Amino acid sequence: MGGATLLACDWGTTNLRAWTLDADGAVVAGREFELGVSKLGPGEAERQFREEVQPALGAQGLPAILCGMIGSNLGWTVAPYVDCPAGLPELAAALTPVEATGGWVRIAPGMRSEGVTGATDVMRGEETQLMGWLAQNPARARGRQIVVHPGTHAKWMLVEDGRLVRFVTAMTGELFAVLGRHSVLKSDAPATDAGAFEEGLAAAGDGNALAARLFTARARVVGQGRAPESTPSYLSGLLIGAEVASVPALLGLSGNEPVALLGDPALCALYHRALDRRGVAYESFDGEAAAIAGLFALYRLGAAS
Amino acid sequence: MGGATLLACDWGTTNLRAWTLDADGAVVAGREFELGVSKLGPGEAERQFREEVQPALGAQGLPAILCGMIGSNLGWTVAPYVDCPAGLPELAAALTPVEATGGWVRIAPGMRSEGVTGATDVMRGEETQLMGWLAQNPARARGRQIVVHPGTHAKWMLVEDGRLVRFVTAMTGELFAVLGRHSVLKSDAPATDAGAFEEGLAAAGDGNALAARLFTARARVVGQGRAPESTPSYLSGLLIGAEVASVPALLGLSGNEPVALLGDPALCALYHRALDRRGVAYESFDGEAAAIAGLFALYRLGAAS
Repeated sequence: MGGATLLACDWGTTNLRAWTLDADGAVVAGREFELGVSKLGPGEAERQFREEVQPALGAQGLPAILCGMIGSNLGWTVAPYVDCPAGLPELAAALTPVEATGGWVRIAPGMRSEGVTGATDVMRGEETQLMGWLAQNPARARGRQIVVHPGTHAKWMLVEDGRLVRFVTAMTGELFAVLGRHSVLKSDAPATDAGAFEEGLAAAGDGNALAARLFTARARVVGQGRAPESTPSYLSGLLIGAEVASVPALLGLSGNEPVALLGDPALCALYHRALDRRGVAYESFDGEAAAIAGLFALYRLGAAS
Repeated sequence: MGGATLLACDWGTTNLRAWTLDADGAVVAGREFELGVSKLGPGEAERQFREEVQPALGAQGLPAILCGMIGSNLGWTVAPYVDCPAGLPELAAALTPVEATGGWVRIAPGMRSEGVTGATDVMRGEETQLMGWLAQNPARARGRQIVVHPGTHAKWMLVEDGRLVRFVTAMTGELFAVLGRHSVLKSDAPATDAGAFEEGLAAAGDGNALAARLFTARARVVGQGRAPESTPSYLSGLLIGAEVASVPALLGLSGNEPVALLGDPALCALYHRALDRRGVAYESFDGEAAAIAGLFALYRLGAAS
């Protein structure tokens, strides 16, 4: 491992993860900051970057590359979307320079796609993770891949020959959070009841009529005497099960195709259970490592051009 | 119109509507109270009824009949569910007496049904409205009727020969409220943009993959430059459109059958637009008048037995 040559940041809505990387893209140091874009005031991004992020990693003067919501209109500087289909070269060519700082600082573009038929879809951050995963797994850059990024706004991505051709976002994680905190389904209990999770997967059925399926989480408690503490696990299974059952069709898929899961390992493990139930093959990959690889690949290509 | 002979109350989660009725069931006086069951502490229901509701309507000593969430475990006394299929006689026979008050006070039971296949569904209050509507429209008590009660927890009810045989609840109104207040779709703007509502109806499609369709409300703003203020109207159209497109199948219906809408007139008007778009015939009926008629019918039958 050599000395740090690059500062790489995944700056999202709720937090910021930053790493210094050596000349081969290996991590020298990493740090997480509670500096989400959702909490940024106007003009604050640059100050936080300069006063908190760079010093904490000893990265003053290093070139820096950033991805995620920091490129949105809530962030630092808007990095316009690149339209599908596109791959690493198009993204690297669309890096947006950040003014008013000393060194080379660039923000990765988000991507835009036809999603639900007749509608537009967008992402910021997942495209960098995807490109990093393809760089880590060159064999995946040939033919068709279906890559799923679970999360607050889960992404189902159709990849052909290393290019993202189309994607659809499902608000699964956000529905889980807002219903669990603010609706008749609210509960402080942890979502750790494996039996209730499976019950939720079963209740997801084909995923249709979700607004009705969601009410079963209430009715099973008041009408069938299930423990209220099991509601979060049931809700998690219901929402993930409905996503897995219904989103592939929006991409013209049968839903039986093997998928690559790319994201938080604990969340991927929940998807394993939903996919197992449907007999769908999967492999899981760590999202953080892929994000680092993607930022490094964008830097190498973007700094050279 | 004669003197008041009955106090009738629809006591729901967020508020309480009460009326005194004459011997023919006509309204003598009515009043709305901000005394929702969700705000009740243990034992408070009786005190509020005695100290606030009865005196405000000069109804001390009158028999009283109550329906709604006041019969739940959050309310006054639990009035157990009556299982489908059932009609007015079964409900009247299952009125639950309230102890510790002077006069005749009864709470109407809720109803329980198979809803989503393999799951249970429940209602409290809508069954009374439905029975009142049938009493008001005797011709509807023959053959099959599909009755829709729009709202926080919208009900789709299958009625055969005056008996409720099955129903499904869709959390449409609650999804609208929690997403509009607490999610990435939040907005303080009123849902009054007719064009955006129609756009949402179009985006609802067949109602499948709702978690993905919901994200189109975000992507159309950040990816297509639509006004953020149009999000509530778009979201309303999307959720109502998805409900109308997807819930009938859960009841074994094609979705083309004519429906009777029973509820708040302004909310019913939104459903008209969703149903118009699908070529479904409908008639609308005022929910409050039906609730009063239902409470009166339950009282007449329940007090006589």
